[in-house]
Amino acid sequence: MKRLKDILPGDRFSFEPETLACYGFDASGLHSAPAAVAWPENTDDVSRLSRFAYENGFALCPRGAGTGTTGGAVPERGALILSFERMNRIIELDRDNMTVMVEPGIINGRLQKELEKEGLFYPPDPASMNFCTIGGNVAENAGGPRAVKYGVTRDYVMEIEGVLPDGRILHTGVRTAKGVVGYDLTRLIVGSEGTLCTITRIRLRLLPLPQSVVTLLAIFDDMQRCGAAVSAIMSAGIIPRTLELMDRGTIRAVENYRPVGLPPDAEALLLIELDGHPEAIREEAARVTATCMEGGGEVQAAESERDRERLWEARRAVSPALYHMAPFKVSEDVVVPRTRIPDLLAGLKALSGSSGINIVNFGHAGDGNIHVNIMADRKDGAMVKEVQVLVKEIFRITLELGGTISGEHGIGMTKARYLDMELSRAELDMMMGIKRLFDHRNILNPGKIFT
Amino acid sequence: MKRLKDILPGDRFSFEPETLACYGFDASGLHSAPAAVAWPENTDDVSRLSRFAYENGFALCPRGAGTGTTGGAVPERGALILSFERMNRIIELDRDNMTVMVEPGIINGRLQKELEKEGLFYPPDPASMNFCTIGGNVAENAGGPRAVKYGVTRDYVMEIEGVLPDGRILHTGVRTAKGVVGYDLTRLIVGSEGTLCTITRIRLRLLPLPQSVVTLLAIFDDMQRCGAAVSAIMSAGIIPRTLELMDRGTIRAVENYRPVGLPPDAEALLLIELDGHPEAIREEAARVTATCMEGGGEVQAAESERDRERLWEARRAVSPALYHMAPFKVSEDVVVPRTRIPDLLAGLKALSGSSGINIVNFGHAGDGNIHVNIMADRKDGAMVKEVQVLVKEIFRITLELGGTISGEHGIGMTKARYLDMELSRAELDMMMGIKRLFDHRNILNPGKIFT
Repeated sequence: MKRLKDILPGDRFSFEPETLACYGFDASGLHSAPAAVAWPENTDDVSRLSRFAYENGFALCPRGAGTGTTGGAVPERGALILSFERMNRIIELDRDNMTVMVEPGIINGRLQKELEKEGLFYPPDPASMNFCTIGGNVAENAGGPRAVKYGVTRDYVMEIEGVLPDGRILHTGVRTAKGVVGYDLTRLIVGSEGTLCTITRIRLRLLPLPQSVVTLLAIFDDMQRCGAAVSAIMSAGIIPRTLELMDRGTIRAVENYRPVGLPPDAEALLLIELDGHPEAIREEAARVTATCMEGGGEVQAAESERDRERLWEARRAVSPALYHMAPFKVSEDVVVPRTRIPDLLAGLKALSGSSGINIVNFGHAGDGNIHVNIMADRKDGAMVKEVQVLVKEIFRITLELGGTISGEHGIGMTKARYLDMELSRAELDMMMGIKRLFDHRNILNPGKIFT
Repeated sequence: MKRLKDILPGDRFSFEPETLACYGFDASGLHSAPAAVAWPENTDDVSRLSRFAYENGFALCPRGAGTGTTGGAVPERGALILSFERMNRIIELDRDNMTVMVEPGIINGRLQKELEKEGLFYPPDPASMNFCTIGGNVAENAGGPRAVKYGVTRDYVMEIEGVLPDGRILHTGVRTAKGVVGYDLTRLIVGSEGTLCTITRIRLRLLPLPQSVVTLLAIFDDMQRCGAAVSAIMSAGIIPRTLELMDRGTIRAVENYRPVGLPPDAEALLLIELDGHPEAIREEAARVTATCMEGGGEVQAAESERDRERLWEARRAVSPALYHMAPFKVSEDVVVPRTRIPDLLAGLKALSGSSGINIVNFGHAGDGNIHVNIMADRKDGAMVKEVQVLVKEIFRITLELGGTISGEHGIGMTKARYLDMELSRAELDMMMGIKRLFDHRNILNPGKIFT
């Protein structure tokens, strides 16, 4: 039998225990040490590794930056981690046709900065954008605050190059906005969490950088009114580029962790951005302000780039702040039609009341995507069962409101057991059939999505 | 064995020869009489018909309005047509969350009008929008002029209800913008040309109706300069809502067929629309006008709604006009990155010169989607071979320029033989595997996409 050193140069893999430990977890807090870590440098490396795994029956776990929260990059016991740090180049920036081809290991935030220099814009902006990779974003179909106006990763992926389990290289999609030749394999791979092929190249669609941006902070002393303001803004035909919600618990957590001067007594905040032509957004900002004020809100505009950055720093500090408060909290990521947000939040409040467990909520109000944080200790044996009941109840309420149990974090390992709460037998049959079709030996990120 | 009359009330199917003849063709000009035509009135009808077909091993061919140009709705011999005239309702318009659930038989143009009354906007606008159905649009992943700014049908489909070959009802997707629970079956079905399931309901994402629209006509006496103007407009960071191209042959065909006063001596026309805030588009229109004039173009603005309608009538008359000139012409639908349009058109001109066959081109310059019309008689035996060679050569040039052989018309029957010019063995393997997974008896629209 061949060994890894027959496949790759010695500096492209490691069996060091320290390395294995480091690559055994992601932001889910789950941990399982891999058998080895490899750092492929090109598609050919990935192809040879896949063929090797296929022939010898061991599992592969592709990994971006490990910022995922559902365990997608946590290896099953005995899996080999494919880590994409060294495949992080921009391969081709086609300015005139507004597309860019990248390797999967490029950091989202770095790509954004490079594109901005050219007057170009890649909208998807997960809160971890300064750390997470585009490959991970594609595998998870990452969203972010700007999704309310600009959609999610899926809406920007044009072509994928991936490696099938047996080492064959698969190209999907077209480099043009239109293309209807056969089935849409590209979007089948987007969001498949590394279970169908290992992504080695991605072409993304780009937009012109918006001319200008206005940032508003709206403060409410009542959550129902805040929810009503969200509906009123969107129903008025205004699509903000972000419409972020923070509840009282979130505001306090951020102010304790990294004070930026958020109003500590507010019941809810909205962080609203509008982008486009200066005259258009000036008018829209006036309408948004009036709408919030009619609903009992108080509105402040960020006067400078520094003000703006400060507000976004606060928003991006939410996850670390909550983690700081409760390192073993359970985070869920549900979505409801945005008009149902008040119903969802009322349901969560009732659950928190009846269980006695603090639940803190923030997220993307514009698209109904709420991050629900159960501030309990999931490592505390006595709590485990209670938390599981709570999670199931949250999902039940979400689905009753016409929602979905995962908006942008994927299923990974942590949500696999709840899959059939949302999906019917027919859907599951088709999905599992597709998994078998692509990966009949089940060597690509096993244990993810499906239990 | 059960018979159709055991499955459906007598007014929901027909074996009349006149009916069979009428339902045997689509806009491809191909014809093959079905064994019967059924008009299901609800999902349950479709489910019972599918189960009946599955158990008795005959084929089903779902049909919208038959406006497709690649034979997607032409039945294989012996297939039963499922025609969706009677499933044409708006089931739920959710104004506040900006979504609409429809049955597949609703006409695109009718839906647009209903939505406009509510201040809502469904962007995909195939040229046949006043006749074609949303179900057909979804099956073909239809585009249209506005795709340059707003994308294609795929970008608006949120949920699908479909019937699997064995009669099971499959629901896919979510009614929220975000949702990452398992694989994206929704977009797998979009563009699958009725080969994976029979679509019975569709939820579409909507946008607010744009505040205002400006329509410009730019006239060029040189095709290269026209192509350069297209690139210059887009590179300036302006995304028009349409950027339509007509070449000299197209202009003359329209003026002969339905005179609207297009300049008959122009080499090329661009029909440009901008939408958004009045101030924003006023500025953009000025920049577009300047850009076209710098490139040697002459620009007229539509001064009234009537002027605007007249220009769009001319655009929508293109296909009928060319059909009128050459009823047995061959229409192709290729896409190249938009900066390569001049190269494509130069290649087509050379092919026309060397073959002596007139080639007339129009289409969506903004997204590189050009409709290539080979003005020959495909029923003329002597020409058949020559036309086939020409088609293959057009596809070869398109692919060399980084394009795709079908932008919005699908593969159907007419392009199936060229599939492997664009797709690799690995892609084809996965697509055919998906077909077998969904439809292992090959009863759903057989003979389409795959030969």
